[in-house]
Amino acid sequence: MPSLLVVSAHSADFVWRSGGAVALYASRGYKVVVVCLSFGERGESAKLWKQPGMTMEKVKTDRRAEAEKAAAILGAEIQFYDLGDYPMRVPDEALYRLAGLIREIRPEAILSHSLKDPYNFDHPLATHVAQEARIIAQAHGHEPDRKVIGAPGVFLFEPHQPEQCEWRPEVFLDITPVWDKKRAAFECMAAQEHLWEYYTRVAMQRGVQAARNSGKDITYAEAYQRVFPLVAEQLI
Amino acid sequence: MPSLLVVSAHSADFVWRSGGAVALYASRGYKVVVVCLSFGERGESAKLWKQPGMTMEKVKTDRRAEAEKAAAILGAEIQFYDLGDYPMRVPDEALYRLAGLIREIRPEAILSHSLKDPYNFDHPLATHVAQEARIIAQAHGHEPDRKVIGAPGVFLFEPHQPEQCEWRPEVFLDITPVWDKKRAAFECMAAQEHLWEYYTRVAMQRGVQAARNSGKDITYAEAYQRVFPLVAEQLI
Amino acid sequence: MPSLLVVSAHSADFVWRSGGAVALYASRGYKVVVVCLSFGERGESAKLWKQPGMTMEKVKTDRRAEAEKAAAILGAEIQFYDLGDYPMRVPDEALYRLAGLIREIRPEAILSHSLKDPYNFDHPLATHVAQEARIIAQAHGHEPDRKVIGAPGVFLFEPHQPEQCEWRPEVFLDITPVWDKKRAAFECMAAQEHLWEYYTRVAMQRGVQAARNSGKDITYAEAYQRVFPLVAEQLI
Amino acid sequence: MPSLLVVSAHSADFVWRSGGAVALYASRGYKVVVVCLSFGERGESAKLWKQPGMTMEKVKTDRRAEAEKAAAILGAEIQFYDLGDYPMRVPDEALYRLAGLIREIRPEAILSHSLKDPYNFDHPLATHVAQEARIIAQAHGHEPDRKVIGAPGVFLFEPHQPEQCEWRPEVFLDITPVWDKKRAAFECMAAQEHLWEYYTRVAMQRGVQAARNSGKDITYAEAYQRVFPLVAEQLI
Amino acid sequence: MPSLLVVSAHSADFVWRSGGAVALYASRGYKVVVVCLSFGERGESAKLWKQPGMTMEKVKTDRRAEAEKAAAILGAEIQFYDLGDYPMRVPDEALYRLAGLIREIRPEAILSHSLKDPYNFDHPLATHVAQEARIIAQAHGHEPDRKVIGAPGVFLFEPHQPEQCEWRPEVFLDITPVWDKKRAAFECMAAQEHLWEYYTRVAMQRGVQAARNSGKDITYAEAYQRVFPLVAEQLI
Amino acid sequence: MPSLLVVSAHSADFVWRSGGAVALYASRGYKVVVVCLSFGERGESAKLWKQPGMTMEKVKTDRRAEAEKAAAILGAEIQFYDLGDYPMRVPDEALYRLAGLIREIRPEAILSHSLKDPYNFDHPLATHVAQEARIIAQAHGHEPDRKVIGAPGVFLFEPHQPEQCEWRPEVFLDITPVWDKKRAAFECMAAQEHLWEYYTRVAMQRGVQAARNSGKDITYAEAYQRVFPLVAEQLI
Repeated sequence: MPSLLVVSAHSADFVWRSGGAVALYASRGYKVVVVCLSFGERGESAKLWKQPGMTMEKVKTDRRAEAEKAAAILGAEIQFYDLGDYPMRVPDEALYRLAGLIREIRPEAILSHSLKDPYNFDHPLATHVAQEARIIAQAHGHEPDRKVIGAPGVFLFEPHQPEQCEWRPEVFLDITPVWDKKRAAFECMAAQEHLWEYYTRVAMQRGVQAARNSGKDITYAEAYQRVFPLVAEQLI
Repeated sequence: MPSLLVVSAHSADFVWRSGGAVALYASRGYKVVVVCLSFGERGESAKLWKQPGMTMEKVKTDRRAEAEKAAAILGAEIQFYDLGDYPMRVPDEALYRLAGLIREIRPEAILSHSLKDPYNFDHPLATHVAQEARIIAQAHGHEPDRKVIGAPGVFLFEPHQPEQCEWRPEVFLDITPVWDKKRAAFECMAAQEHLWEYYTRVAMQRGVQAARNSGKDITYAEAYQRVFPLVAEQLI
Repeated sequence: MPSLLVVSAHSADFVWRSGGAVALYASRGYKVVVVCLSFGERGESAKLWKQPGMTMEKVKTDRRAEAEKAAAILGAEIQFYDLGDYPMRVPDEALYRLAGLIREIRPEAILSHSLKDPYNFDHPLATHVAQEARIIAQAHGHEPDRKVIGAPGVFLFEPHQPEQCEWRPEVFLDITPVWDKKRAAFECMAAQEHLWEYYTRVAMQRGVQAARNSGKDITYAEAYQRVFPLVAEQLI
Repeated sequence: MPSLLVVSAHSADFVWRSGGAVALYASRGYKVVVVCLSFGERGESAKLWKQPGMTMEKVKTDRRAEAEKAAAILGAEIQFYDLGDYPMRVPDEALYRLAGLIREIRPEAILSHSLKDPYNFDHPLATHVAQEARIIAQAHGHEPDRKVIGAPGVFLFEPHQPEQCEWRPEVFLDITPVWDKKRAAFECMAAQEHLWEYYTRVAMQRGVQAARNSGKDITYAEAYQRVFPLVAEQLI
Repeated sequence: MPSLLVVSAHSADFVWRSGGAVALYASRGYKVVVVCLSFGERGESAKLWKQPGMTMEKVKTDRRAEAEKAAAILGAEIQFYDLGDYPMRVPDEALYRLAGLIREIRPEAILSHSLKDPYNFDHPLATHVAQEARIIAQAHGHEPDRKVIGAPGVFLFEPHQPEQCEWRPEVFLDITPVWDKKRAAFECMAAQEHLWEYYTRVAMQRGVQAARNSGKDITYAEAYQRVFPLVAEQLI
Repeated sequence: MPSLLVVSAHSADFVWRSGGAVALYASRGYKVVVVCLSFGERGESAKLWKQPGMTMEKVKTDRRAEAEKAAAILGAEIQFYDLGDYPMRVPDEALYRLAGLIREIRPEAILSHSLKDPYNFDHPLATHVAQEARIIAQAHGHEPDRKVIGAPGVFLFEPHQPEQCEWRPEVFLDITPVWDKKRAAFECMAAQEHLWEYYTRVAMQRGVQAARNSGKDITYAEAYQRVFPLVAEQLI
């Protein structure tokens, strides 16, 4: 069973940024695993913290529930590493846990955040960890009794303010067929309701651009930057 | 019949830089058209000019014959615009001729040179012309009685010294199945025999890199930079 | 009377890309002059060309009328240089005409297109011309009897696909107070109705980003890249 | 009372690089707080270490006294975190201390070093810490009983060798009115007397450039790179 | 007799930007040839134009005299192409004239302006012409009876506002031994007296940086960007 | 006795990437010291791990033996820090050990890896450590009883896939005279036999490019990127 891995710094990032890819691959029979390194409990739960008597445990519980619901709609499995956010700190054991997961599911692609983000240092750290875990999973001398992986592509999803993050769209993925699921997953994220319309517009703008670059009939798209070059038997 | 267009500044560039793509697509039933904007008669025919009594006409005739032979081996049609080289100057009529050809064959992709080249100003000019012709061919008001084209991809082939040209490989095309044809085409280029081994090594290095980035069994590859983003229904 | 100059490659560009700035400065008592180097008659009038019996003159007349109407709504004066598009070619006399206009109105800022645009070569050419005209207007020996200008800022407005044009937003201008005028100007552009919603969403996305970067209450914004550094008596 | 925060890797950096901004804002009634992460006791006190019998404590004491004197001249409060230099290492408690300070004074802008510096790794680390502290101070779940901050601008001051640090001047601040104070602050830095003239010339060169970019009468300037875009109600 | 070629857009550029290199190589027995493509008569002669009754011919005559005097002090030969400035336009015959000169003197290095300059479009044009002439001079088929040149290095001298021109210093040339000549050449440029101190400070700042990067005792330096990589038998 | 320092992430990197420089400087009487931060025991020993019953100690022993043999052929001393690989982690004591070595041998140049490498995070880390150790060794207050160093150049050797690592060749070193030694050193690396031909072709391609950029007769070259500018008494 082919698989895809998404490494999400906070528990909602995978929805806004890669929900279309997740739903698309799940619909094609892929096992899609989302790893949330944190719940975004400190930095991305403003609405919850405005409620009286809120506690860290309550925030985490709510955020976990939202993320699980969204993952279910999209068709993904989800894991929570609970590493904390703002700032995130990643001990080597978490890195090895992720490397172990990569060896286990052998994803064809790994999706994570942009390489830079001046608004949010957890995002590039998540990508760094995803890349380092991938490299470790390729090393023959790391747990030599387990089979190493090949060279899965790494795709960086669109940050909130793309130009400020030095991110650029290199691949437009047509997510029109699964848009309804992505939108439904948005609506699980009660703590960040202000982002629903923002990311709907992102999908529409990228859809127009995808159509214009291809001549195809596309309404909604997600954009990704590649880390590694494409190897192919065709150009077009 | 699907088609591919190669815009080559000089009469041999298409061989070293895109011979694999040409042979590959020709072998798949594409009509592949190569446009040589010049014969490289002044700047890339050193060996010929060392012969006693050489004339400009003789150089052009020899270069044309070599290029026609190489194109035949690769399976391409070839056209010569004879615009002169070192320096190349492109009148608007040549631009419109190229736009007309693009409208006529409606290529799925256009291949040309890197956007910069401090060693050779004809190269980026050729790409500029190819891009501008493509844009004109898209304009409804240019020769409004003829059908406009869609949005063919533009692929920049590898320059002689890639890093100095700010070019980077974004797509590796596996040309192993047609390597023999590409090498045979090299050997038509008697005027530039010193490049045969150089570009054989380029193909081997890119082959190793392509294999390493994909886990596939690839021996020879050509590398391209994309001008426009990829629009796709899959990431991998 | 202070002034602002907009150099627009085609007759509608100034509306989508700088309509907010135009309306804002006009509302503040600035003389705002828009120069349309062409009517966009060949490359940006697809809808008109689909009408039976359309002619070049008719397209230009329609495009001029639309642009004049939009300029009137925004509060700008408008001039048409009729240089042709796709491809645009700019003779030195047009350059000197523009330099003369700059000397005449002495704008505090000049707005034009991004420095690169692989989709549209007229756009960066328009900026090149605007910049060169500004430099000529600064030269004491050019028409030495007329007063030279100082150093007006140059601001590059947002292209259709910003990342592909290597453009980045450095200044967000709050256009919320004049949004209604900008939208009304959109609706003059019958030939490009498909862009109304696209650029409404652009304004909303930039509005969200402007709010996020400032903590201010902003709904609609336009983004600009600066060519020259800001000189100021304060940082904030 | 509005405020400004300067995060200085070593105890003299704030003088050379932002002394003008500090004096200017202090003169305008701002509370300006300078945080020196270290005394520069190992890497930037060569002259002191050449004295016989010098000790680490003596160096720190001298450097602190110089910095306090300079801060007093400029009108700033100063704090020393004493984290060590060459190499600097920043424990999370220092990061949280800085985040706490940011919440306390709620600065309108934060000034720190360039993002890269191959001559001095403490400099970009100081900026990284300043940015991460700012992000933490924005997080609702960090010390949820305290009020979060908005989005203060981050300005990067000029490094010793700007081009090697990939830093570029985006804002020129006119410091002519406070130049005498900046120069007087230089002269507190007995340990680095060789830099007095160097940074006087920097201020004069930036002054000429500021004048040239604005047409204003400016003699001395400081240059800054912005991390975040400017949000404004005017372009000019 | 070894030689060096300087291609200067206006008649004073070679003094401010490369006067040290010129004097240094002249003092070592090189034939140094300076080509001034224009007199800078329109854009860089403000002081002259402020004199009553000034004419274009008078400006050119004065500028030529100043440049000849400066060249004599530095030890260079000087040629004037009189192509006009602001804007400069270069016909192919001027390009071939320059290519002919390059073939004639066979320079070991060619010095010219930065590749970009938003303040002055004549500057990058001069470099473009210098590079294109060099390429033509390398072509065996251009005037096949004359000997082609090898591959002289191309060095870009420091523009007025380096960071805005995307120029970076890659080579620091110690000009301390010839500083007096460079300064004396400055003082020939009566039309641009405001630049004397500016470029003296540039030389001092680059001198400090050169000393710091090398540990050598250097007071004055000129900085250059390389177009082509260095080929050497040693790294250090 | 002048010296050179090579900081190699894994025990074979110095051979592929800088074997020519090592042999060249050793042949000129330099003391060349290679520091291998790890043995590459986990990530670069695939062939060894495929042998039955392989252990970590055995891999390290084999890799050490290979590296010592290669160093002896090239004429270098070699030290092993045994920090582990995939991922490498560098405690401050290792950093200080390296700073101490730099103070001891006072190298004229330090060679290490590219600043980025998405395939291998140990490589840029090694360079970071080399640079930070160099900076510490320059600090008067670090072990103040020992003499500080000057400003040795830092040269970054060619990574496996140069363009993907944002590395560019700025210096081509002619290694033709010592090529036989470099090739012989390759052949010590039994664990990575697949790289022998790959890096032979790299040396040949860089050799052709070096010849083309200089007009010299060069067959084999190594390419380096500089971290700091060149300071020189000549351009050419």
